[in-house]
Amino acid sequence: MKQDKPLVIGMAGLGTVGSGVARLLEDNAESIAKRAGRPVKLKSVVVRSMDKERVGAAKDAEYTTDLLAPANDPEVDVVLELIGGTTAARDLIVAALENGKHVVTANKALLAEHGDEIFPLARRKNLHLGFEASVAGGIPILQPIRDTLAANELFSVMGILNGTANFILTQMSRQCMPFDEALAQAQEKGYAEADPTLDIEGIDAAHKLVLLVQLAFGLNYPLEKLRIWGISRVTPMDIAFARQMGYEIKLLGTARKVDGKVTAGVYPALVPSHFLLAKVEGSYNAVRLEGNAGPVMLYGYGAGDLPTASAVLADVIAIARNCEPNNLGFPGMEFPTDADILDLDEAVSEHFLRFIVPDRPGVLRDIAGVLASHDISIAQVIQKGEDTGAGVPLVLQTHEASAREIHTAMDEVEKLDITLDRTMHYRIL
Amino acid sequence: MKQDKPLVIGMAGLGTVGSGVARLLEDNAESIAKRAGRPVKLKSVVVRSMDKERVGAAKDAEYTTDLLAPANDPEVDVVLELIGGTTAARDLIVAALENGKHVVTANKALLAEHGDEIFPLARRKNLHLGFEASVAGGIPILQPIRDTLAANELFSVMGILNGTANFILTQMSRQCMPFDEALAQAQEKGYAEADPTLDIEGIDAAHKLVLLVQLAFGLNYPLEKLRIWGISRVTPMDIAFARQMGYEIKLLGTARKVDGKVTAGVYPALVPSHFLLAKVEGSYNAVRLEGNAGPVMLYGYGAGDLPTASAVLADVIAIARNCEPNNLGFPGMEFPTDADILDLDEAVSEHFLRFIVPDRPGVLRDIAGVLASHDISIAQVIQKGEDTGAGVPLVLQTHEASAREIHTAMDEVEKLDITLDRTMHYRIL
Repeated sequence: MKQDKPLVIGMAGLGTVGSGVARLLEDNAESIAKRAGRPVKLKSVVVRSMDKERVGAAKDAEYTTDLLAPANDPEVDVVLELIGGTTAARDLIVAALENGKHVVTANKALLAEHGDEIFPLARRKNLHLGFEASVAGGIPILQPIRDTLAANELFSVMGILNGTANFILTQMSRQCMPFDEALAQAQEKGYAEADPTLDIEGIDAAHKLVLLVQLAFGLNYPLEKLRIWGISRVTPMDIAFARQMGYEIKLLGTARKVDGKVTAGVYPALVPSHFLLAKVEGSYNAVRLEGNAGPVMLYGYGAGDLPTASAVLADVIAIARNCEPNNLGFPGMEFPTDADILDLDEAVSEHFLRFIVPDRPGVLRDIAGVLASHDISIAQVIQKGEDTGAGVPLVLQTHEASAREIHTAMDEVEKLDITLDRTMHYRIL
Repeated sequence: MKQDKPLVIGMAGLGTVGSGVARLLEDNAESIAKRAGRPVKLKSVVVRSMDKERVGAAKDAEYTTDLLAPANDPEVDVVLELIGGTTAARDLIVAALENGKHVVTANKALLAEHGDEIFPLARRKNLHLGFEASVAGGIPILQPIRDTLAANELFSVMGILNGTANFILTQMSRQCMPFDEALAQAQEKGYAEADPTLDIEGIDAAHKLVLLVQLAFGLNYPLEKLRIWGISRVTPMDIAFARQMGYEIKLLGTARKVDGKVTAGVYPALVPSHFLLAKVEGSYNAVRLEGNAGPVMLYGYGAGDLPTASAVLADVIAIARNCEPNNLGFPGMEFPTDADILDLDEAVSEHFLRFIVPDRPGVLRDIAGVLASHDISIAQVIQKGEDTGAGVPLVLQTHEASAREIHTAMDEVEKLDITLDRTMHYRIL
């Protein structure tokens, strides 16, 4: 089992994650060699431009601007794709696999969009395609699903999969801060990109959810069929009302099996305050899995240089130890078949509706009447505040109904011409 | 990679965990075969007496009262030791390994006490000795440490490792219930054994902590050197004062590296209320790991038939997939060397002291004087209630000091002859 031959790595990308990988390989070299059973050597690094300063930790590596260099280097055992994007990254991964090299990547977008090409190729070549780092950064999640929870039949997977969005919601909640201000703060602190769309609109979380569903259920829920909502319309007022009712608002990715079908989506949801998931704050991530052997929750940093690099190197160490590839968690599977989908709008849950209405008699009666006519029963009502001309919030918690029924009722309420602002609708977990 | 030959199991023990294993093997047969790459077959079951009714799920297995039957059966690939105890269980495991069979066990007591015999034997034979189920039941924890967190240098591991103790503390806390009453309730609900010593005195948690330290640090902290305190002296009053100061009392197993040494122990500790660990309630377990790539926390059921069985079968599935054995997380290691130990009483932390004293002038001055004379500074004081003859509680939170210094000061306070009841001391996390 023990081999003295080092495992040789070629790495493309020297951004946050790439630098973290180089640093961990240097700082933890001894313990990594002990865990892996042999040394792990960073031979080459692909950079965009040779002008840039080299990262201290990777100073002994060969630098190149030739993207495919690691894929073509006979000495390289494993190619790390850490450049991101879906074009050059795809070319590199395909070339590496074609040339018989294992691949480790943190590229959730690429795998969620082109997994049906890349996973079967790795499978046919019997090569590792490690992607632990692509979901929830430094939190052990893909390997636990594949290995430690493999005897469970998982029927639910949900999580706080985007640290930027969770940071923003936490600030909005703690400081009763509007979304724009919290976003600006996140950008200042380096938690959000200049263009924050992927994070705040739920797209990054959706990429991760697609991968989680593949591993947890052995089924493909195509990204383009996934229902995705972001947090840009969430208001501190909604957060405050939700808390009053015993909930926190979290951007969740959720997928569950319902009568053989899978229903999934990314959306800001009301999570009961006593759930551990509701207590995950700031830029932390958490994933909750439920199977017939009970629930587990895994929690930690979803991003950042060292946490993500640690996940990248977990896959590298598994390769060093000569484990058989089991990329998708089912050794015989080329790629999961498409799930039989129950659209999220057809799945039932409780709902939270917040209207802005004039403070006058008959408004609650009219809205309640519309809901009743759609067989939607009301669990809780809050109406507060004085009408200073802009109306007052009217908040309703419903019993179980499908979102489709809720939307139909909401449309009908709009026609009554009594709402003074956009009505907000959240699903309750 | 794909093999059609089933993996054949011989199982000793048909109690809670054994029945759970049989049930999962039946209920999840198809998905387990997909995850494992081949079917897993339960061939034989060792029971204490043939008179007992057979468990439905294991009805097709051969039953025997011959303990060593699975170890001697040439068809058996993996022996599951689920009988517990440290005598017969040891005989079975040694016989199985000697005969070239992989072993999976949930027996933390045996491994904590006789690991130095069993692990080297498995290593020399290049056989799996799976023990995921022995720590924190259904929570993925050993495999994440060995694999997913392998690129981290872990320096801290702590956890709520005993569900019975956590259930009792939760009931004491929620209902301001004395220990005895909460214990009786736990026994009624089946969470605590008739003889609850192992759970409430911290011994079960200590067994698990020894194994966690071996995996996380690659070092052996011999059980007999571990400092262990239980929860039987914790009072609802202490819990209430702790909460007032912003803490929850939890029975923790903790180990951390301090300047190259390891300090470890099991004790009821004050955990800051905003820590996720403080929010782990009832019979749940959680383990928090911290390394140079950030903290993670893993949460779920620490016991129970299906959660524990799921962990047993995780090891079985790894064996079915022909992974190389890596039992202790360091492929080249026979058994960890002993840690250089920093006794828990020499490690510094903040402390919580609760005295029962007469409500008269000078008492606080005298106690504070003793602490000051030992250079222990006070961070917070609470004195409340009216003295009806039995004294009043006086609660002090100190700044950092070693427990040795605290104990010396406590002894000196005793000599003042002003305390009216046993003084309680808790470490603050």
